[in-house]
Amino acid sequence: MLIVQKYGGTSVGNVDRIKNVAKRVAKTANNGNKVVVVVSAMSGETDKLISLAQQISANPQEREMDLLLSSGERVTTALTAMAVEDLGIKARAFTGWQAGIVSDSVHTKAKIEKINTERVKAALDEGYVVIVAGFQGITEQGDITTLGRGGSDLSAVAIAAALHADACEIYTDVDGVYTTDPNIVPGARKLEKISYEEMMELASLGAKVLQTRSVEFGMKYNVPIVVRSSFNDNPGTLVTKEDADMEQVAVSGVAYDKNQAKVTIKSVPDKPGIAARIFKTIADANIVVDMIVQNTSTDGKSTDLSFTVAKTDAQKTRALTEELMRGLGAAGVDMRDDIAKISVVGVGMRTHSGVAATMFETLANHGVNIMTISTSEIKVSCLIELKYMELAVRALHEVFGLEGAVQK
Amino acid sequence: MLIVQKYGGTSVGNVDRIKNVAKRVAKTANNGNKVVVVVSAMSGETDKLISLAQQISANPQEREMDLLLSSGERVTTALTAMAVEDLGIKARAFTGWQAGIVSDSVHTKAKIEKINTERVKAALDEGYVVIVAGFQGITEQGDITTLGRGGSDLSAVAIAAALHADACEIYTDVDGVYTTDPNIVPGARKLEKISYEEMMELASLGAKVLQTRSVEFGMKYNVPIVVRSSFNDNPGTLVTKEDADMEQVAVSGVAYDKNQAKVTIKSVPDKPGIAARIFKTIADANIVVDMIVQNTSTDGKSTDLSFTVAKTDAQKTRALTEELMRGLGAAGVDMRDDIAKISVVGVGMRTHSGVAATMFETLANHGVNIMTISTSEIKVSCLIELKYMELAVRALHEVFGLEGAVQK
Repeated sequence: MLIVQKYGGTSVGNVDRIKNVAKRVAKTANNGNKVVVVVSAMSGETDKLISLAQQISANPQEREMDLLLSSGERVTTALTAMAVEDLGIKARAFTGWQAGIVSDSVHTKAKIEKINTERVKAALDEGYVVIVAGFQGITEQGDITTLGRGGSDLSAVAIAAALHADACEIYTDVDGVYTTDPNIVPGARKLEKISYEEMMELASLGAKVLQTRSVEFGMKYNVPIVVRSSFNDNPGTLVTKEDADMEQVAVSGVAYDKNQAKVTIKSVPDKPGIAARIFKTIADANIVVDMIVQNTSTDGKSTDLSFTVAKTDAQKTRALTEELMRGLGAAGVDMRDDIAKISVVGVGMRTHSGVAATMFETLANHGVNIMTISTSEIKVSCLIELKYMELAVRALHEVFGLEGAVQK
Repeated sequence: MLIVQKYGGTSVGNVDRIKNVAKRVAKTANNGNKVVVVVSAMSGETDKLISLAQQISANPQEREMDLLLSSGERVTTALTAMAVEDLGIKARAFTGWQAGIVSDSVHTKAKIEKINTERVKAALDEGYVVIVAGFQGITEQGDITTLGRGGSDLSAVAIAAALHADACEIYTDVDGVYTTDPNIVPGARKLEKISYEEMMELASLGAKVLQTRSVEFGMKYNVPIVVRSSFNDNPGTLVTKEDADMEQVAVSGVAYDKNQAKVTIKSVPDKPGIAARIFKTIADANIVVDMIVQNTSTDGKSTDLSFTVAKTDAQKTRALTEELMRGLGAAGVDMRDDIAKISVVGVGMRTHSGVAATMFETLANHGVNIMTISTSEIKVSCLIELKYMELAVRALHEVFGLEGAVQK
């Protein structure tokens, strides 16, 4: 079997943990498997580098930022290869570009365009365990890029897809994917398996266990992804294609996201094309907009337009929209970040009616006001005040019977 | 003018110092010069990485070691570019391979084979200050290499040669090249200029201010090298071609080296080809041998053979020679590292006779026993016991009148 394993920052956080990772890798190799290992930077290292850059410049160039940030994974990649080799197993370390990971040139948030697997394949054929630096790639022009927060997951899944690996194991500091955050609901249950679609919604809704784009990539290329802990041998959660079992359950999980900010443009003139201009400007700045709400104009002249972005993009978004609104006659731009997004997710929702109604009713019963609603085929999301977040998660987890129930 | 500036680890040791470097770079650029900047890793960073590797494995792979060590310069390269850009000057950071530095594949001690300057030239032509990661290159096969301790000097001089730069300024934490170590002789005098040949001898003899190979490279391609401090505006020392002024002075400096170990193979059979086998074995292990002494055989059958290597290579050398001696009937291998090499250097020696005699006499007058002597056209070196080192340096500095004398 060809297995891709990805170890996150906490799993390679110090020398002893790297040695532990090496033991796990060695065991997999000794069982007769070909192994590719993708590693993140040591936990805290990327933040340390970002802090250095911020001390140097308020507005560092993104190209140079990527060069800076890519150094953390080189360290763990080299150290992991040394640790595996120390156990008597041939290992070879590759940077992102050495592993053939080619991306577009959107620095700090690059997208993988293709993977040239020749070098990795050759090393595997020569009997090496291959260790690849996650989170990074290179443009066709030879500039180093990084793939955004959680990008190492994407590196792993993309490599697994390119190599037609039999499995992609994502090792992290939790046992798998849970029905909700066990820190909020102690009775939260680990899921044995979950569909790509559900996982994507959960990931994008702030369940940090797996990066959204990596799930998208896994779904597209049908890569079986296993999320499990590097600190024990528990079986983890399999992320796979939807099957009949999954549809038995209306709601698989409750997710929340505290990292969004809500921007409201007040009294936007009710003219065609204005919303398009706003969101084009924001998209051009590579800022991802999540929920968008626009009420019907009551006076036929102007209306309020609200949307959410990541908190880190909030100031930039505000500046962009304020500049854009100048001269358009909007009354101003408001921003608030004391909000949370609560979501229930499940492929069974398609066949089980009333999930949204139950959600709204439950929130109302607990006195939680809903600011904004957004739905998809398999999820319902509500924006609420941040202070109600934990209460809302607990209430929804209970009302949808997620605690203790056995899921096949 | 096109100027290459190299800043060592202490010059980029923290955020404030990097900002200082940026100011100096900006000043040079604002004076209308094209500037290429080569930076080392932050001081202490490379040692930290080596320590991590040693904690992982007693014998880490050298290829992976290079990948590990090359990360330190990426950090300073990116940060320096950000700091320069923050002063309103366009700057672009390049890794060693992005700057086209191609080396052989002798990991941890690679030699630069060629420099493909297209990318750096293009960036200079577009008006960028170019910041290059020192100490690193890439093999034709795409593996990252490092150039050995002090390799950033070599990166700078090699880039200056490849670009036909008007000057290569090596910024360090001392004001220039001194007649000897001011820590030992407080009256040591800074030299205004020095020939490549003298600098090479001084560098290889342990005056750490400039890496030997970089001087060799400078001489070969006639690159004017200026050694100066990044902490003040003192003029520094120019390393250049020998001229008539320099020959007026018999001795330019007194150097010492505490980092060598002496290996003695006892009772080596006096047969042709044995010495060749020993030194071929050592050379194949990429260990550099410095002094070699073999006394005439007194009994016609066997003799002692002594040579010096870097202390870091001593154990490996001992193991290699012991293995080689097994079966050849040598009496054993001795190693001692409580030794120092003291040298007097000067191009004037060629025309001033008696330098060696004065040196030996001075050491004898102070009761210092000479173990081994080695000479070249412009230097005389003696191996002595380590405990006499400072005494010997002071005595020789005085007897050759280096203190206070004015040199043109």
